Amino acid sequence: MKILITGGGGFLGSRLAAALRERDPDAAITLVDVAFPPGLAERFDCVTGDLASQKILEKALARDTDAIFHLAAVVSGGAEADFDLGYHVNLDGTRALLEAARKLAKPPRVVYTSSVAAFGGELPDVLDDSTTPAPQTSYGTQKVIGEYLVADFTRKGFIDGRSLRLPTIVVRPGKPNLAASSFASGIIREPLAGVESACPVPPSTGVWILSPRRAVEAFLHAHDLDSSAWPTTRVVNLPGITLSVREMVEAMGRVAGKKALALVKFVPDARIQGIVETWPVRFRTERALEMGFKPDHDFESIVRQHVDNEKTRAK
Amino acid sequence: MKILITGGGGFLGSRLAAALRERDPDAAITLVDVAFPPGLAERFDCVTGDLASQKILEKALARDTDAIFHLAAVVSGGAEADFDLGYHVNLDGTRALLEAARKLAKPPRVVYTSSVAAFGGELPDVLDDSTTPAPQTSYGTQKVIGEYLVADFTRKGFIDGRSLRLPTIVVRPGKPNLAASSFASGIIREPLAGVESACPVPPSTGVWILSPRRAVEAFLHAHDLDSSAWPTTRVVNLPGITLSVREMVEAMGRVAGKKALALVKFVPDARIQGIVETWPVRFRTERALEMGFKPDHDFESIVRQHVDNEKTRAK
Repeated sequence: MKILITGGGGFLGSRLAAALRERDPDAAITLVDVAFPPGLAERFDCVTGDLASQKILEKALARDTDAIFHLAAVVSGGAEADFDLGYHVNLDGTRALLEAARKLAKPPRVVYTSSVAAFGGELPDVLDDSTTPAPQTSYGTQKVIGEYLVADFTRKGFIDGRSLRLPTIVVRPGKPNLAASSFASGIIREPLAGVESACPVPPSTGVWILSPRRAVEAFLHAHDLDSSAWPTTRVVNLPGITLSVREMVEAMGRVAGKKALALVKFVPDARIQGIVETWPVRFRTERALEMGFKPDHDFESIVRQHVDNEKTRAK
Repeated sequence: MKILITGGGGFLGSRLAAALRERDPDAAITLVDVAFPPGLAERFDCVTGDLASQKILEKALARDTDAIFHLAAVVSGGAEADFDLGYHVNLDGTRALLEAARKLAKPPRVVYTSSVAAFGGELPDVLDDSTTPAPQTSYGTQKVIGEYLVADFTRKGFIDGRSLRLPTIVVRPGKPNLAASSFASGIIREPLAGVESACPVPPSTGVWILSPRRAVEAFLHAHDLDSSAWPTTRVVNLPGITLSVREMVEAMGRVAGKKALALVKFVPDARIQGIVETWPVRFRTERALEMGFKPDHDFESIVRQHVDNEKTRAK
């Protein structure tokens, strides 16, 4: 089994690589990304470079590749700040990857990561599988365009595509990034590490959440499902749980204590607020549940998941 | 007033050019297309070439252009037969045009022609403004992607975009083309001219129709509306009328007589049928009607419109 993971140097990409290796020790796994953390190159075939470059794709994508997990992207805040870079990576990069996939020996399974940022504008209180994407960011626009490309390349028989609209992933480890949703991990991760965290949105802000563990499980499940299990749009809204920022912080406090609670400071940031406010908070995800995708049980267990992961990493 | 019309050599583009000239004799109107019929170059500034080429766009698009009507496209059957050409013209061409528009002295009004081919798959009996596009052709996919680009470029303030999802335009003059909907004009146009016409779909097939006159009126109205009249998606389904092929042919017979009726032969074509079957037939177009767009009254008057136009052309 030959597998390519784009964005394989990222936190979700590298966890997915580890999960794939664990269930199939003989799998040939290639990661492509603009940079890699230490340690990955010893365990996986790592290709560094721009996804939209023909040369990099030729290097990364073996002709007999069976599966592609496309996670690489310029994140929401980044694509909003640099319009050209966002389109280059998120649209040109995706298209170049699909074109390269089309030329493989046989149509590969392609798991494409879209996002809840596909939705925005005038939204119903509860979104469902029939809600029309109306992104309010360039990132969301690029993600939706990618979904339509995946569907068309699949319809033509060039690939066997599967698109997942991811909720906000919490708790991300490491450092804050340019994603407008970066705070949602920051307000949990930093206090747990004894560090202050500035929350740019009010405590009442709602967030639609999926844990890293469930996200990686969803990537594997999306890959494993029979092609016929997917609708012609090839896209599904993943199930998440809805929490307010206040509820998230309180759950963190129950795990880490009052001292940690005091480390969350509310420092309004109009730019971040403007982006986050356009994202939906409540979903009915009937299709995904029928297809066997699973949400998290509760937020406290997500916080404990992060604490356990950090302990393992520290060892 | 400086205006660019892409696809300006086509039948709708050249009629739009004439309508714009009629209401503003001083307007500087440039047409860009891969070819032009005789006569146009004497009345308009005609640029021949590939829309996706930087050089052609620089030649066609004056820095102080006020309005762009983007009609150029590889049609449905053409984009389905030649995947690469369809993406080159319909996606790369549209993106190159929007990028060029972004660099103008001030954000131009951009009227973008999308299509009912945006819809397909599992559809409700009657579509409305909330129906999610799920195209079943590459042409439809490219048109929907264009809508999302127009919305994002508008949101960023680069252009003032307005997208129209056109019903099938009937009666097109001239010769059959590669559009899967070409038959819908052929079964009217050819018998009226005393020529046999092969209809590739059964008489019961439904079609969602707009006349050329109403289409040109819609382009002008879309341009003239205040920016605030448009939703954030910048797209509207134009109002049409629903007819079966049988009803269309019968209306033609009432205008042209029984002899003309006998010239329509039903010759099933599975490829065309496969494309046309995915298109929706019935719509509720509340938003468009509220915005002042107008459908045709009946099909007989559309047939008579065509007869009158042909008489004028023959003079």
